[in-house]
Amino acid sequence: MAGKLFGVGLGPGDPDLMTLRAHRLISGASVVAYPALAGGESFARSIAAAVIPAGCREIVMDVPMTVERAPAQAAYDKGAAEIAAVLQAGEDVVCLCEGDPFFYGSFMYLFARLSARFEVEVVPGVTSITTCAARAGMPLAARNERLTVLPGPLPEDELRSRIEGAESVVIMKVGRHLAKIRGVIEGLGLTDRAMYVERASLPDEVVCPLAEAPERAPYFSMILLTKGADPWL
Amino acid sequence: MAGKLFGVGLGPGDPDLMTLRAHRLISGASVVAYPALAGGESFARSIAAAVIPAGCREIVMDVPMTVERAPAQAAYDKGAAEIAAVLQAGEDVVCLCEGDPFFYGSFMYLFARLSARFEVEVVPGVTSITTCAARAGMPLAARNERLTVLPGPLPEDELRSRIEGAESVVIMKVGRHLAKIRGVIEGLGLTDRAMYVERASLPDEVVCPLAEAPERAPYFSMILLTKGADPWL
Repeated sequence: MAGKLFGVGLGPGDPDLMTLRAHRLISGASVVAYPALAGGESFARSIAAAVIPAGCREIVMDVPMTVERAPAQAAYDKGAAEIAAVLQAGEDVVCLCEGDPFFYGSFMYLFARLSARFEVEVVPGVTSITTCAARAGMPLAARNERLTVLPGPLPEDELRSRIEGAESVVIMKVGRHLAKIRGVIEGLGLTDRAMYVERASLPDEVVCPLAEAPERAPYFSMILLTKGADPWL
Repeated sequence: MAGKLFGVGLGPGDPDLMTLRAHRLISGASVVAYPALAGGESFARSIAAAVIPAGCREIVMDVPMTVERAPAQAAYDKGAAEIAAVLQAGEDVVCLCEGDPFFYGSFMYLFARLSARFEVEVVPGVTSITTCAARAGMPLAARNERLTVLPGPLPEDELRSRIEGAESVVIMKVGRHLAKIRGVIEGLGLTDRAMYVERASLPDEVVCPLAEAPERAPYFSMILLTKGADPWL
């Protein structure tokens, strides 16, 4: 009988924001798998580090950071083949995913490659967007408000029209797009309604009004914007 | 010294999807608070039931279900006053919140009333949107895709234009708006890309293509829609 693949969301970074189910699955794992970007440390693994049992086998998918797709595809093909071999041999594999596996996560690439052949369970995790809202003291959405999540790399015009059309906006993956995004928000006269959060829930977290954000933002940074006049009863 | 207020997200319903932090805070609580709708059972309390310690004091906010705001405001005013009295006396209060406290959650009404006077920590939780995606085997968003979250009660025209303008759409609080939403999605020719999920992660969960959804949907139901041609590497 083939093993089962678990895609386990680990939450935003603080290991305490892992779910009970994630904790139990990782504690009992004999094989874990995770991506590592460009030969660097794996953020997902760092969140789970204290929970991975001694002697657990680790499958590392070394995903190159390029704009071309083929090298990343090859990395996931190779990882999926290694995972498939373990599953075929009857062992379960716990795939470690920062945040939530299906919310801008790389687990979907493994899911696409393996879910037709093997049993897969996706365990949702706390996302960075509600973590940032919690840390910024800024409710994301209430009642009948619309919430839009936008990746920072989108073109300026698109960011502008999307921000105009929603009450609450979360801009993810700010990183090197900070100056562009700041310009769009400034142009819309919304700077005083925007918060900047970087590395939410981690020890070196930064939370401040967008106007006071640093000049350079890391990849794991986010801008929250709410336009509701007074969304609170 | 005043106590601290914790707004604790409990996740979508399965107690196993509670975070370690939520579990620890509730296990150690001497006072918990939670809303109950119209004198009924509290969903939040039911998720945490096995973790609430014996002898723990419970503050129940009985929130009437009306379209008028004043009765709900009065319920939160009363609850906030009871909580404030406990905090003032130096004890902490753990407020139980289904899902995430700041994602369409009622904790924001307590936050608005108490955060200026007392220390408040918001503990994020797993939201229903990523839980539904996990259960439906449907990745929500990848790379530079936009995700829009829409409440089902929005007018038909608005739902239509918002769905047209996003790659991935989550429609929350479907309930009695199911027929209207189904009509909009059908009109856009997107029915075969939509999944219906009700009571995600609970024992009586329903997951199926929208075309096979029941005629009547409960409040805790959701429609997921992705238009990405092939979002997977």
